[in-house]
Amino acid sequence: MQIEVNRQLPVPLARQIYQAVVDRIQSNLLEEGTRLPSVRILSKQIGVSLMTVVQAYNELEQDGFIERIQGKGTFVQKNKQGGTTDRQESPYDWQLSVPDYLPRAQFSRYYQLSARFEFFSSTIDPGLLPNRYLEKEIQRILSQEPRILSTYGDVQGDPVLRTELAGYLRESKISTTSDEILVTNGTQQGIDLVARTFVGPGDIVFTEAPTYPAAIDVFRWRGATILPVPVDEHGMRVDMLAALCEKYKPKLIYTMPTFQNPTGTVMSAQRRRQLLDIAYETQCLVLEDDPWSEIHFGKQPPPSLKSMDSLGHVIYLKGLSKILAPGCRVGVLAASGTVFHRLVAAKGNTDLGSPMLTQKAVLPLLHSDRMRNHVKKLRIALQLRRDLMIDLLSVHMPKDVNWLIPQGGVNLWLALPVQIDTEDFLGYARNYQITFLPGAACYPIESKHHFLRLSFSYLNEKEIEEGIKELGKATQSFIKATAAYRKAPIV
Amino acid sequence: MQIEVNRQLPVPLARQIYQAVVDRIQSNLLEEGTRLPSVRILSKQIGVSLMTVVQAYNELEQDGFIERIQGKGTFVQKNKQGGTTDRQESPYDWQLSVPDYLPRAQFSRYYQLSARFEFFSSTIDPGLLPNRYLEKEIQRILSQEPRILSTYGDVQGDPVLRTELAGYLRESKISTTSDEILVTNGTQQGIDLVARTFVGPGDIVFTEAPTYPAAIDVFRWRGATILPVPVDEHGMRVDMLAALCEKYKPKLIYTMPTFQNPTGTVMSAQRRRQLLDIAYETQCLVLEDDPWSEIHFGKQPPPSLKSMDSLGHVIYLKGLSKILAPGCRVGVLAASGTVFHRLVAAKGNTDLGSPMLTQKAVLPLLHSDRMRNHVKKLRIALQLRRDLMIDLLSVHMPKDVNWLIPQGGVNLWLALPVQIDTEDFLGYARNYQITFLPGAACYPIESKHHFLRLSFSYLNEKEIEEGIKELGKATQSFIKATAAYRKAPIV
Repeated sequence: MQIEVNRQLPVPLARQIYQAVVDRIQSNLLEEGTRLPSVRILSKQIGVSLMTVVQAYNELEQDGFIERIQGKGTFVQKNKQGGTTDRQESPYDWQLSVPDYLPRAQFSRYYQLSARFEFFSSTIDPGLLPNRYLEKEIQRILSQEPRILSTYGDVQGDPVLRTELAGYLRESKISTTSDEILVTNGTQQGIDLVARTFVGPGDIVFTEAPTYPAAIDVFRWRGATILPVPVDEHGMRVDMLAALCEKYKPKLIYTMPTFQNPTGTVMSAQRRRQLLDIAYETQCLVLEDDPWSEIHFGKQPPPSLKSMDSLGHVIYLKGLSKILAPGCRVGVLAASGTVFHRLVAAKGNTDLGSPMLTQKAVLPLLHSDRMRNHVKKLRIALQLRRDLMIDLLSVHMPKDVNWLIPQGGVNLWLALPVQIDTEDFLGYARNYQITFLPGAACYPIESKHHFLRLSFSYLNEKEIEEGIKELGKATQSFIKATAAYRKAPIV
Repeated sequence: MQIEVNRQLPVPLARQIYQAVVDRIQSNLLEEGTRLPSVRILSKQIGVSLMTVVQAYNELEQDGFIERIQGKGTFVQKNKQGGTTDRQESPYDWQLSVPDYLPRAQFSRYYQLSARFEFFSSTIDPGLLPNRYLEKEIQRILSQEPRILSTYGDVQGDPVLRTELAGYLRESKISTTSDEILVTNGTQQGIDLVARTFVGPGDIVFTEAPTYPAAIDVFRWRGATILPVPVDEHGMRVDMLAALCEKYKPKLIYTMPTFQNPTGTVMSAQRRRQLLDIAYETQCLVLEDDPWSEIHFGKQPPPSLKSMDSLGHVIYLKGLSKILAPGCRVGVLAASGTVFHRLVAAKGNTDLGSPMLTQKAVLPLLHSDRMRNHVKKLRIALQLRRDLMIDLLSVHMPKDVNWLIPQGGVNLWLALPVQIDTEDFLGYARNYQITFLPGAACYPIESKHHFLRLSFSYLNEKEIEEGIKELGKATQSFIKATAAYRKAPIV
């Protein structure tokens, strides 16, 4: 277990240690029953006082993450739901002492949960996607060019696809060419490429808070110091970003200005301009993640940061197969200059390039008017589902549950009463066959625990209807149980 | 430009700096005409004496990598072939001062070169692959399950495919189950996952020397100290590995015991046992890369390290789509215990899982006897091409060119006369429409320059025949030119 603390930060050292241990437990990287290092050893290893570690361990014990057993040591707490037995000895036990460089992997843990009502999933209902059309096109392409199964392509991506992608981005005023486009295995790889190339130990990365949990996983892995900037109804609080940048020189600002994940908010045009000015002043990079700008329900959102940037500060990510064929995992990265060239080199080191088959599969739709028609259809279908979900929430949720109404995208951000921990609630809600994203995973540090994200894109109308009814029941019942549990010590 | 040196190593500091700069230039990460930091600044940044940097810069200048311009500074040398003009000022020039964590990306640079005779490419001739069969199977699968285009799969890989893969590995005595199999985007991603999870700054990684260049790229990126172990006709010199391990505690041993890349040698069963014992004693991990063990021309090679390992030290990589459908980029990683679980978590952080479409595409062949028949056919076809290439080399190459005869795999390792630098020769050979892998890229440090790797798998018989004739001409002519150039100063 390698823990690093940063003395420059306004966050107490004990709190930083607490967070590092919780991240590993929440990511299943510290398994139940694993013995933690003693206070003495950990304080020496990190270079902090004994008292600091004692304080961190006390808080971890209070919050039920670890337990101390007299004369034996400190252990990761068994699952609160119980049911696991003591660990058996295994021939692989020596592996526990192999240190790794993986402090956090929370998102993919939630991502793996399955249930009848997967409000967690922010992919689009397969019923809304042009599978049959793509299937026919893939048949046509394979019979014309069977060799795409047997040859490697460009590291940078298929040139024909890159040309189409550049054209597609130009429609939203991003001035780019096929030479400045890199095809990735989904947006997640795009974030990872930027992190592995430009982010390292101690570098300052600013993100929105809350933000996309898998981005936190990746920046944390690189040893970055992640500083959160709050979000209000006009997106990231760029005024606060500016104040923080006075003290902390950023290497990278990671932002989702349009239909932010998880809040669904849109950054105003004025703040976009200000954010770009900050990047120019501080000579830092901006990673703009834009999965959903096509899916707007009202007026068109302001232009992307990338379209406003003439100096090559913005690296732009578009998860293209998200709205076409998520199973193909085709993402787009657009950037300029040596920053772009270095990212292409990193892609080579990572996997030598994306598969030809999936790149060719998404091509036919892009090439035609079908894309525009498909997007129009999606907007209508998803707006209907958003409206349905909001109506149902109003009926079935307790009065003290609130949410923002997103003007696009696929996510709803719910605030439950402050005493509720949505991580615990997720465990409870699974009895109702429900998954969602608990809010705590969306904060790089000092998490808020009473939020959760529901996606309205994956389930169809009928499933949303049944699912939100169940969620209403689960919420009522969990709030009652929490209140009873809270009261218990007093009785 | 971030350069790190390691004072524990038997390699002089000036030489380490030299190597770091050459790696970046060879990887196109330092572009022609880029200004290097002054001696004073670099010595301060690295923490070495002025004289050490002066010595490194002198050697770089002598070898034609950099040039000093009086009153202006030190610059990366313009391409020896000439033809580039002075760099124009660009709005992106500020990017040159953005530090990155990408010290080397050599392999993908060579990988991008195209020519009529691509002896570089170690993929298999598409004409030998079952494209039409796979095409029909993909059609069948898509019409049965069009939703594989629109849904994400397991991070760990499609369970049906994992079950087939486990069965396939068990045929070669690797005792594994679908729970211990991770599907990757080709072997390259497997190496990358292991490096990002278990290798960090200052960790000791042992590799064969020569070895697979893209593995060096990845370990160097992680800041590891890579220690080379020579190879003889029985594979890695495990006796030397043992001696080195007395002084340097390994974190990881990276090896290709069977038909080693690039030499084609096979590690003896005795050395395999010894290597595993070293791993057990030093409590380190072993990364076994096994792309070609199926493709043996004589007797079956000894069992894999993985099949001999009961304690979970070996992480095993198999580039499965290499022999089926390289365009699908499907690789297999097999490991055990928490080491395996941590790698799955890392895969989640990297890309949330491989595309369903490519995973389903390789399934039908694996499932049937066709796989075995296909491998038999490949063995025969590739042995014929190896024999043909060796016959042609004997006829067309100068007498002082030598090679090992591989008993399997796809590569031939050639030794040219020692005065030849095959990196320069590659530039020259491109006039003959030839590519190959220059040997220097295969060494982590202290490269040998007169070797090159030819692959006999990608080109068909006719192309091999014409290509080796051209290579013969190019070699004769280059050796003559080099001799003349060497003599010139004397005349």
